Amino acid sequence: MQSVIDFVLELDKLKTVTRKTKTLHSDRYENSAEHSWQIAMLAWSLAPYAPANTDINQVIKLLLVHDIGEIDTGDTIVYANADWDALKAEELAAVQRIFGLLPDGAAAELLALWQEFEAGSTIEAQFAHACDRAMPVLLNLANNGQSWRENGISYQRVVARIEAPISQGCPALWQYLAQRLADARHAGWFGC
Amino acid sequence: MQSVIDFVLELDKLKTVTRKTKTLHSDRYENSAEHSWQIAMLAWSLAPYAPANTDINQVIKLLLVHDIGEIDTGDTIVYANADWDALKAEELAAVQRIFGLLPDGAAAELLALWQEFEAGSTIEAQFAHACDRAMPVLLNLANNGQSWRENGISYQRVVARIEAPISQGCPALWQYLAQRLADARHAGWFGC
Repeated sequence: MQSVIDFVLELDKLKTVTRKTKTLHSDRYENSAEHSWQIAMLAWSLAPYAPANTDINQVIKLLLVHDIGEIDTGDTIVYANADWDALKAEELAAVQRIFGLLPDGAAAELLALWQEFEAGSTIEAQFAHACDRAMPVLLNLANNGQSWRENGISYQRVVARIEAPISQGCPALWQYLAQRLADARHAGWFGC
Repeated sequence: MQSVIDFVLELDKLKTVTRKTKTLHSDRYENSAEHSWQIAMLAWSLAPYAPANTDINQVIKLLLVHDIGEIDTGDTIVYANADWDALKAEELAAVQRIFGLLPDGAAAELLALWQEFEAGSTIEAQFAHACDRAMPVLLNLANNGQSWRENGISYQRVVARIEAPISQGCPALWQYLAQRLADARHAGWFGC
């Protein structure tokens, strides 16, 4: 029991990991804990648009755990020119440390989910990726392109990073976003 | 698709609903969105202590939606001498409005989950309640009784509000907490 409690209290640190996107109703950057809740809700609500036989419970679990490594690494905006292989290796070390607070069986279950998300080879992981990429876009579309402007992100850069995963994981969502992004470009909501 | 997006953006408001408990690693009050994520993780991690045949996927879903009504009503500390029937009626109206942004089938699914949580008549709802009551206690135990002190909450008041639901929903968790609460009382972490 104490190991479970230690783990859940360690998770409290994700509330202090800030992302580049602001919340819509207060002038602060969102954190990765509340983001994890919101994308679980996004994926669940988008279930009618998921590929046939997608296990939505599995998608929800993938999304609840996918950002936990940021407790040690912080969040990196998806449009960054980062060394993504090195970042992912750091995140793996982080989740091994954090999930390792739990008893072995539970730690292995969470690590397998984290790895499934990263590998992106199941329809559940692909749908989860689509939701994860879409959520900050939806917030930006509701917020005059706030994080695109602040970070100098172009329309082309956004499309280059999100089109493939979203159109693969949830084609109807990409169809929706493509039009919205074109409107946002016309409105001048990108950073360059 | 637009109705799903409208719903998920409406959910952003839950990030601005503050609770009485502070996060452990920054001097601010936690919000109900990040709380919803953390208790889903608590319930999931406590699965080995759940009653036999508890559907943990169902518990996670109950917890992800249970606080959404607070978008309209705000959070009320569980130890308050509030008119709980009136509060729950307000919350019901709130979730009917918010879930009603979704297509009918999805709205009905979420409302049924919200009602299942409130009714507390399934083992899943009872386990979810135990987790919901336990989480702020665990934060207080890690934070020198912060919200108990700030709100003048006594040891007796805490036990009166949490013993029944936690010992019913997750007996092992109550056994753990009873000892920790006794220690906290000894340490003077209660408000009166």
